[in-house]
Amino acid sequence: METLSYHDLSLVIKFGVQFGLWGMSVMFLGTEKHFEKYLKDIGTLDIPGGFAMTETHHGSNVKGLETTATYNHKDRSFTINTPVPFARKEYIGNTALHGEMVTVFAKLIIDDKDYGVNAFIVPIRDRDKNVLPGVRIEDCGHKMGLNGVDNGVIYFDNVVIPYDNMLDRFAQVNEKGEFETSIPSDNRRFFTMLGTLVGGRIGIPRSALAAAKTGLTIAVKYGDNRRQFGPNGGMEVPVLNYRIHQQRLMPYLANSFAIHFGLQYLTKRFMNRTEDDMQEIEALAAGMKSYSTWNTRDALQECREACGGKGYLSENRIDDLKNDTEIYTTFEGDNTVLMQLVAKNRLGEFRKQFSEMNIATIFSYVLDQAKTAVTEKNPFATRNTDDSHLKDPEFHLHAFQYREKELVSSAARRFKRLVDDGLDTFDAANIMHPHMLQIAFAYLDRVFLEQFQLQLKSADESLKEVLTRLYNLFAINKLQENKAWYLEQGYMEGVKTKAIRKLFSQLCWEIRRDAVPIVESFNIPENCLAPIVTTDSEQV
Amino acid sequence: METLSYHDLSLVIKFGVQFGLWGMSVMFLGTEKHFEKYLKDIGTLDIPGGFAMTETHHGSNVKGLETTATYNHKDRSFTINTPVPFARKEYIGNTALHGEMVTVFAKLIIDDKDYGVNAFIVPIRDRDKNVLPGVRIEDCGHKMGLNGVDNGVIYFDNVVIPYDNMLDRFAQVNEKGEFETSIPSDNRRFFTMLGTLVGGRIGIPRSALAAAKTGLTIAVKYGDNRRQFGPNGGMEVPVLNYRIHQQRLMPYLANSFAIHFGLQYLTKRFMNRTEDDMQEIEALAAGMKSYSTWNTRDALQECREACGGKGYLSENRIDDLKNDTEIYTTFEGDNTVLMQLVAKNRLGEFRKQFSEMNIATIFSYVLDQAKTAVTEKNPFATRNTDDSHLKDPEFHLHAFQYREKELVSSAARRFKRLVDDGLDTFDAANIMHPHMLQIAFAYLDRVFLEQFQLQLKSADESLKEVLTRLYNLFAINKLQENKAWYLEQGYMEGVKTKAIRKLFSQLCWEIRRDAVPIVESFNIPENCLAPIVTTDSEQV
Repeated sequence: METLSYHDLSLVIKFGVQFGLWGMSVMFLGTEKHFEKYLKDIGTLDIPGGFAMTETHHGSNVKGLETTATYNHKDRSFTINTPVPFARKEYIGNTALHGEMVTVFAKLIIDDKDYGVNAFIVPIRDRDKNVLPGVRIEDCGHKMGLNGVDNGVIYFDNVVIPYDNMLDRFAQVNEKGEFETSIPSDNRRFFTMLGTLVGGRIGIPRSALAAAKTGLTIAVKYGDNRRQFGPNGGMEVPVLNYRIHQQRLMPYLANSFAIHFGLQYLTKRFMNRTEDDMQEIEALAAGMKSYSTWNTRDALQECREACGGKGYLSENRIDDLKNDTEIYTTFEGDNTVLMQLVAKNRLGEFRKQFSEMNIATIFSYVLDQAKTAVTEKNPFATRNTDDSHLKDPEFHLHAFQYREKELVSSAARRFKRLVDDGLDTFDAANIMHPHMLQIAFAYLDRVFLEQFQLQLKSADESLKEVLTRLYNLFAINKLQENKAWYLEQGYMEGVKTKAIRKLFSQLCWEIRRDAVPIVESFNIPENCLAPIVTTDSEQV
Repeated sequence: METLSYHDLSLVIKFGVQFGLWGMSVMFLGTEKHFEKYLKDIGTLDIPGGFAMTETHHGSNVKGLETTATYNHKDRSFTINTPVPFARKEYIGNTALHGEMVTVFAKLIIDDKDYGVNAFIVPIRDRDKNVLPGVRIEDCGHKMGLNGVDNGVIYFDNVVIPYDNMLDRFAQVNEKGEFETSIPSDNRRFFTMLGTLVGGRIGIPRSALAAAKTGLTIAVKYGDNRRQFGPNGGMEVPVLNYRIHQQRLMPYLANSFAIHFGLQYLTKRFMNRTEDDMQEIEALAAGMKSYSTWNTRDALQECREACGGKGYLSENRIDDLKNDTEIYTTFEGDNTVLMQLVAKNRLGEFRKQFSEMNIATIFSYVLDQAKTAVTEKNPFATRNTDDSHLKDPEFHLHAFQYREKELVSSAARRFKRLVDDGLDTFDAANIMHPHMLQIAFAYLDRVFLEQFQLQLKSADESLKEVLTRLYNLFAINKLQENKAWYLEQGYMEGVKTKAIRKLFSQLCWEIRRDAVPIVESFNIPENCLAPIVTTDSEQV
């Protein structure tokens, strides 16, 4: 997905729907009989398909979806139905034109009893692409981007499918017509089903990162070439020589490396996953998906503006990169909602730690916090502006960890206080959402920082200097973005945050010298770039 | 332009090019003979035209443009020429298809001597729309947005125009073939010419604001209707009831009012302008253009995300609003460059004040600064978290003014130090650019705040409550955005910035209750809104 993204993002999403969603849903929610019958044909594209979860009225809150799959005792078939117009399946990729089958998520009903959401394979077109009886499909219409993806709306009017079409890994209807499952809780079963699909959430941030790298390559090369203004009587200078221009683009170069390393780490953990690991992997995937796609949104915005009017011409690609990835912050889970899940996971971990603590570990935790107060909140540390200190990975890690821990523990205290004050948990959570968003960012910042530090240690000697600068910029930029918080906490004083701003400017200036080789290291084929950089349009 | 913007932004830009640029250039740079010959036909659209300033190699730095207008003594004509390919006129609106004449900015050459940039009317098509000999026009191609505007690239191959086609308000070639001008400095004459075009820069921020209001109307009404998640066992709640959703949209509602009042003020000052006023009006126009267009960029981004997948469908209009206004931050002057001009103006004002000060006024200035230290930097003020204090317009104004003054005076000191340290002014300015950007923002924030306060005083009693809330949110949000700076300065302590965050959340929550009537007060025709709000698509 990452490599395809250099070329065309609609292709990436078609690919992702076919293999990552349609194929993976059969592979992870189905059993042997489904693998034999479908997987090869899905892999060869012989059965184009889709993934019909979202409904018009249920996007983020998919647990509330209303499509029904009613079990028919007589022939053990299921009847798939859209009970009200707004329960239509919405925005389903690969279905407006090409899909022949879809995995439908629907509430299983047996004898009028609702057994929660389950997944079913439902044919929607015959081999000649005629829409099947009982199925109604509409094109979603023109979108801001990704118009190469045929998103459709699907209504089911009592469509009957055979028994074997239920994807029955986690739940089955037995021969007596009774519901059976290895995971009795509807809620847990539903989230286990969703959890198996986490792989898809790894592809999106990688695709987003590739789009950001492409935009940055274009903007950096253009900025290195494009001259405007200059000293009195002298030649005009490349716009990338301006500090303000550097400060718009260089931080995203640093972010690209951080996110690249972080996503490699996530992929590795996912490939070697164990049952115990899954909760954190899900949180990491949800978080990195949000973090990377928001980063791409912001990076491409800067790239467009940094290329001025040239950046607005479609031929220079930022148009498609920007408009195609615009929906990345929404699909595969709305970022704002996903970040709440990440924060909940962190808060859960925190509570678990506490509940598992015995007197000795609580004592050591309290001691640890006290040590922070002593070592990091003393006037020497909060006012330390030495270059060696500001570039010290130990300092960075401590500052990032401090922010993460403090945000988590203060959230726990605050939530308790709100509930103690008489708010119900829904209202208390509502008030806490912005705080939770900060927890998720702090957690992810820390993970990206750690991974960058690890890569730095094992990097080839010849790369260490330039990688270290990028690493320092990532760390310093994050500290700067959060300096209000650090100042509020008394973790830093003004003199230190001012030194950080100065170092930020210095690092951007140093990295600018290697900016062109750095973007060339992304190794994006020249024919995936833009006329403004591949022709010598700026040479007179 | 503001009202047309509710309907279609390409139309607005076509309109702006025809009347604001082509028409205004004739009106402000020409003289009686031009008025008689052209103005009526421009006004009736009988002569569609354009404004050919930008060249491929000179966008922001228009003073460096290379097109020549060579005076021919024999018949007093001028020869317009594109000397090198990259001196072609670039991105010229109304010229790829419709324009018949353009105002060309070119260096006037008499007997091989360069008399700086002047303006000339150059026919490019005949009445049958055939491109005239010596003129070559290419379409700029597909753009991210505004594809209803025919932007063209123009090359001139020694096109001869009659003497009368020179727009000769500020400079003329006399009967002896000598250059004459009332403004001897090339530089001053050039900027005086540009200054007359400031009217165009007032239209763009108003158009941008209209686009933001349209997006906000769509997102607020959708958020009020769209339900997702809810308390256990209860109904799902409108997404606008979530604090995090409120905090994404409500600040832009407040900004809309602030910018609306500020632009009214700018328009009024422009309509009643005197020569003395012009420098500040130009700074205000450049600044408000940048401020408003960046605000629109950010507001529409939030609107798109707040509407989720529905916001991505072109039928819901955020697509066009966003992509059409995307170039607003670049055209009519790149925002980053314009903001430097604004800051230079403020720094100039500061220096002028100082140079005009006698001992008494310097004493009172120092006293004023000292008073600030006493009244506002004492522990009571920096830690004051009373609601009445945080909502006090006097406190807001003081905090805004303090930031502006401190940024300006520290810039003056810093610039002097850099030059004293041996940097040339170009390099010193380069280092200062990010600081200068902050000056421009601080200045504009203060102007918008003052105008909002004035409107509040004269507002109808029935509106005061809701307007006061919007005013408070504008003020508090700006203080929050800059809280790192206030903390660094010791102007506020953590306890106060935390109280500000709490008040921010509270104000967003209070304004949410009136959010629908507030967006309805924008009075945008329903047929300019979107299917997601004009149909009852969210009612089951």
